Amino acid sequence: MTRWFSAARMGVHLTDDERLDWLRLIRSQNVGPRTFHALIDRYGHVRDSLAALPQLARRGGASAPGRICTRAEAEREIAAASAAGVTFVALGEPDYPSRLAMIDDAPPLIAVCGKLATLAQPTVAIVGARNASAAGIKFAERLARDLGEAGLVIASGLARGIDAAAHRGSLTTGTVAAIAGGHNSIYPPEHAALAEAIAQNGVVLSEMPLDHEPRARDFPRRNRLISGLAAGVVVIEAAQRSGSLITARMALEQGREVFAVPGSPLDPRCEGTNNLLKQGAAPVTEAADVTAALRPIFEQPLQLSAQEPDHPIAPGEPRGQSEPGDGERDRLVTLLGPTPVGIDDLIRLSGLPPAIVRTLLLELELAGKLARHGGGLVSLVPSI
Amino acid sequence: MTRWFSAARMGVHLTDDERLDWLRLIRSQNVGPRTFHALIDRYGHVRDSLAALPQLARRGGASAPGRICTRAEAEREIAAASAAGVTFVALGEPDYPSRLAMIDDAPPLIAVCGKLATLAQPTVAIVGARNASAAGIKFAERLARDLGEAGLVIASGLARGIDAAAHRGSLTTGTVAAIAGGHNSIYPPEHAALAEAIAQNGVVLSEMPLDHEPRARDFPRRNRLISGLAAGVVVIEAAQRSGSLITARMALEQGREVFAVPGSPLDPRCEGTNNLLKQGAAPVTEAADVTAALRPIFEQPLQLSAQEPDHPIAPGEPRGQSEPGDGERDRLVTLLGPTPVGIDDLIRLSGLPPAIVRTLLLELELAGKLARHGGGLVSLVPSI
Repeated sequence: MTRWFSAARMGVHLTDDERLDWLRLIRSQNVGPRTFHALIDRYGHVRDSLAALPQLARRGGASAPGRICTRAEAEREIAAASAAGVTFVALGEPDYPSRLAMIDDAPPLIAVCGKLATLAQPTVAIVGARNASAAGIKFAERLARDLGEAGLVIASGLARGIDAAAHRGSLTTGTVAAIAGGHNSIYPPEHAALAEAIAQNGVVLSEMPLDHEPRARDFPRRNRLISGLAAGVVVIEAAQRSGSLITARMALEQGREVFAVPGSPLDPRCEGTNNLLKQGAAPVTEAADVTAALRPIFEQPLQLSAQEPDHPIAPGEPRGQSEPGDGERDRLVTLLGPTPVGIDDLIRLSGLPPAIVRTLLLELELAGKLARHGGGLVSLVPSI
Repeated sequence: MTRWFSAARMGVHLTDDERLDWLRLIRSQNVGPRTFHALIDRYGHVRDSLAALPQLARRGGASAPGRICTRAEAEREIAAASAAGVTFVALGEPDYPSRLAMIDDAPPLIAVCGKLATLAQPTVAIVGARNASAAGIKFAERLARDLGEAGLVIASGLARGIDAAAHRGSLTTGTVAAIAGGHNSIYPPEHAALAEAIAQNGVVLSEMPLDHEPRARDFPRRNRLISGLAAGVVVIEAAQRSGSLITARMALEQGREVFAVPGSPLDPRCEGTNNLLKQGAAPVTEAADVTAALRPIFEQPLQLSAQEPDHPIAPGEPRGQSEPGDGERDRLVTLLGPTPVGIDDLIRLSGLPPAIVRTLLLELELAGKLARHGGGLVSLVPSI
């Protein structure tokens, strides 16, 4: 969970103006979900974060300030989305899926299309191989149908093979497709009709701009949404080093249950799933295996911390700490390299106050010089 | 491990006369391995146990004394075995497999044919469906070959399907077939040639009389030998309620590792193996999964207790405790029924001394009125 987001922020509706500011901030250059959260941690408010972007990037050593999404651009995206039946839901708003809100890098805004009530239901993800076997596809459809009849919504990624079968099996009971591109760029294109059918009884969800065409790196990023939406992830047929295993890893990092369907050791499409079993994933051969494991989790209320950030700050004011100096910046940059390193280690090794380290990292990030990874790890982006 | 059998009895060679007595005792009516051990626990010596049989059975309420194997019958079996290249190895003798010696109901004598040195090697069992799929058979043969090349002897049950494939895959590296019938009654008959080939490079092992034709109930009994010989059991393709699952259960009771090969949830032949995975069996897709798990077990020396029984007794003398009276017998029988109950519970509920309870149970057993189960459980045999 991000530092600024707490129970006190839950259930709050954004004004249209605030929503516009949120969209501008997350669409600005070098601002991803983690940077977004780091900015709110520091400035307490989206508008002030927007205002601070140029100065922060300059201090981080950017030769030119990163491109800031204009008010007009954000207005155009919201209008186009509205025309396409897509609405933006902000983190903390009532329609935002509560489990997704708990992950470290929760998208500040999700663009959703369909029956939003679906997002409030107990959800399990089913993912797997694109080149699935006929048996795998049949099993995925049956498992999705059975889990749907047991009252669970099925989340998946709209991919060929297992994903599509999982959506098809749960079309009437409720299904959510988290996609890697924008709503106007459904991938694979032949699944456009399936996406429309999903929106009839469920939700298509994206964190990307409406017309964004998905690139290879967008799929792993999207996978955290599939696992983030769900209390558990079932993997059906997955080769080694496949995207489904990335989803399984994300699920573990997010504290989700991981299930794997056993398969023949002679089928390379089962190598990944069988290895998950070796690593402790729960075997699944029928819906009851999943429901029995998840029931106690769904029965437990989600715990959002009721605490505000350590040092509450007045809106519009940066935190009362002193700004970092050049010497401190140099000390931190020396400690950084292309290998991801923990922020805790940076604080310890630099001897700098945590707030200063966080500010310096934010500046470097907005200057396009820093990448954030899961688990509080950061690395320098190699200059080309 | 049985109570009388301890480190002090290890490595002792029997005289021909003693071997004859052992064979007579285990071939006598109502004497199974557990009764055999209970008799030695009480009388300290096989000859005295033989002499006590009629009186014990009478005290247990037998209308007619159980049939005692005569010296001539035992001599004939040993001669016939010798002619067939089969020798008898007694529990505690150097050629007796040390892991098998550790199980509660270790056969007092095993009839073995082949290269006896095989029985001293680190061993793993492979068992599975008789109606195995082509893929299952291929996998079994490959796994047996790979484990054999890694230095392990493969134990199995000479059945059709997986068992035969496991033996074939390990013919040149070393394999042991534990059979349910006698050596002169190989089942299934079409595996006679395979049994001969196994004896060339490994061992065929039985605890039954040479000409014994296996009945249905002999197979579960035999399964404890397969798991008992091995440090772990790999199950490849097993339907629900199949013999392979009995072997897996025996393995668990004996403290052996249980491995299962994952398979498609749509194949009923994989239901049993997948359920084993759900119950915590280790998934196996390649030999390394087995060797990695068993290496530390093989590196650890087998621990045989160095203690003699609680109350050492002079040969030829029953233990110094008083004989049970009729009142005590009635009290115990009242507590017994067709549902298996723990001997510990019987001792507690009857308020009788443990030695008295054990003697009473022995008498009932020799009268054909008591059945012993695993885990120290006993039940009354319903009178017909």
